Amino acid sequence: MSDPYKLALCQMKPVKDKKSNLDAAVRNVGEAVRREADVVCLPEIWNSPYDLMLMRENAESSSGPSNTLLSELAHEYKVYIIGGSIPEAAEDNKIYNTSFVFDPNGGIIARHRKVHLFDVDIENGPRFKESDFFTAGDSLTVFDTEFGKMGLAICFDVRFPEMFRDMNKRGAHIVFLPAAFNITTGGAHWDILMKGRALDNQMYIAACGPARDTGASFVTWSHSCVATPWGEYIAHADATEKIIYADIDVDYMNKIRMELPIGN
Amino acid sequence: MSDPYKLALCQMKPVKDKKSNLDAAVRNVGEAVRREADVVCLPEIWNSPYDLMLMRENAESSSGPSNTLLSELAHEYKVYIIGGSIPEAAEDNKIYNTSFVFDPNGGIIARHRKVHLFDVDIENGPRFKESDFFTAGDSLTVFDTEFGKMGLAICFDVRFPEMFRDMNKRGAHIVFLPAAFNITTGGAHWDILMKGRALDNQMYIAACGPARDTGASFVTWSHSCVATPWGEYIAHADATEKIIYADIDVDYMNKIRMELPIGN
Repeated sequence: MSDPYKLALCQMKPVKDKKSNLDAAVRNVGEAVRREADVVCLPEIWNSPYDLMLMRENAESSSGPSNTLLSELAHEYKVYIIGGSIPEAAEDNKIYNTSFVFDPNGGIIARHRKVHLFDVDIENGPRFKESDFFTAGDSLTVFDTEFGKMGLAICFDVRFPEMFRDMNKRGAHIVFLPAAFNITTGGAHWDILMKGRALDNQMYIAACGPARDTGASFVTWSHSCVATPWGEYIAHADATEKIIYADIDVDYMNKIRMELPIGN
Repeated sequence: MSDPYKLALCQMKPVKDKKSNLDAAVRNVGEAVRREADVVCLPEIWNSPYDLMLMRENAESSSGPSNTLLSELAHEYKVYIIGGSIPEAAEDNKIYNTSFVFDPNGGIIARHRKVHLFDVDIENGPRFKESDFFTAGDSLTVFDTEFGKMGLAICFDVRFPEMFRDMNKRGAHIVFLPAAFNITTGGAHWDILMKGRALDNQMYIAACGPARDTGASFVTWSHSCVATPWGEYIAHADATEKIIYADIDVDYMNKIRMELPIGN
């Protein structure tokens, strides 16, 4: 038996001025902590608009100002921070779309580099080639916390169910998914994917997108959400800037797995 | 390039008198053929109500009256018939929940014995132990037709995504799923599962349930449906007795796979 813990997903609205995004992170994490969150998650590419032309100039090393700030906030507030993702300028001179996780001491305890880059060309929909700007990661990410094992993937990774099955098999009871879907595939597929991954693996899925900016070059679906092991939402945002909260209950997950046994 | 073909899902309403169910199959297949269906699918356990206590008495060999009738209908009308499923009295004296497929010559070209039996015990929901009455099959089923390769699974099999991935990898562009879900899990999970399997594998899913009989011992969700490789319904029944139709377009599937490449 274990007590539920409280999760906050910050559907921030990144702007071109990076300093403003860092300030917004301070406000969002502070507000989530005031609402007693134990774990705070930011969206995919939280320190810049999700515009591929801006990735190189906004790229930072793992010890750059964005991560330094999140480390300080995690330490100050004694919370876990799933740092959405940032364009990471790596030692190999490549740029990755990377999520860093900070523990309540401010240490980086996990790093996920987006494995499946978004290369699509959809009739009457987006044409996008992330691999022109990012290098793909090559491994999946599960990490330990005081609340149990958690998994981490980014956006288009969600299209690959085997990855989630593997995180499940490695003991993750929740997978965080910083995710900036576009409107076409978001409207058509977001709910199916989030609820489906949760239901198939009988675990929690917490997807955190940026708020929609209709003037941006890439207009996002947003709709951050938390899906349960029963495949239903317990928190669900519209497209506007906001924080949503959910209690994550591992005992409930175990009950579902016992009632409807499918090998998880 | 290939022309679409027409699919009919017959959401029949089985009753206790087997002869009435055979007569209903004649009417349903006849009507589907008049509407120019090329492939006709019946529901899970179409020759009996889905009541585990009736399975033994309604079990038949693969050459029993139910299969003989479907063979004759397939041959007479020159259509493929996905024979939902029947309780099969096998040579090994075991009873399986089995789907037989008939080609336009009336021959049996595939047989799927339900692999994952429905053994659940859900609070405020069903308690059910299919394995007390049926033996589980042990293999997946893909078969060739003039319209391409097709897959076949039954009801609870849909909870196991690896099985659908395997059918996809073996070339199936559609999976038929005779399926009598209950109301609790049907209401919560039916749409997520059907659209999810279709979307993840970028293939068609055609699920055919019996019509709802509120006086039956097992009240079904029904809601037969056809989901596309884009994860949307192109045919969708309510819970009443009816036939639904859909055009299956392999070229459209290939277009989706090209526009949104995820390895299928």
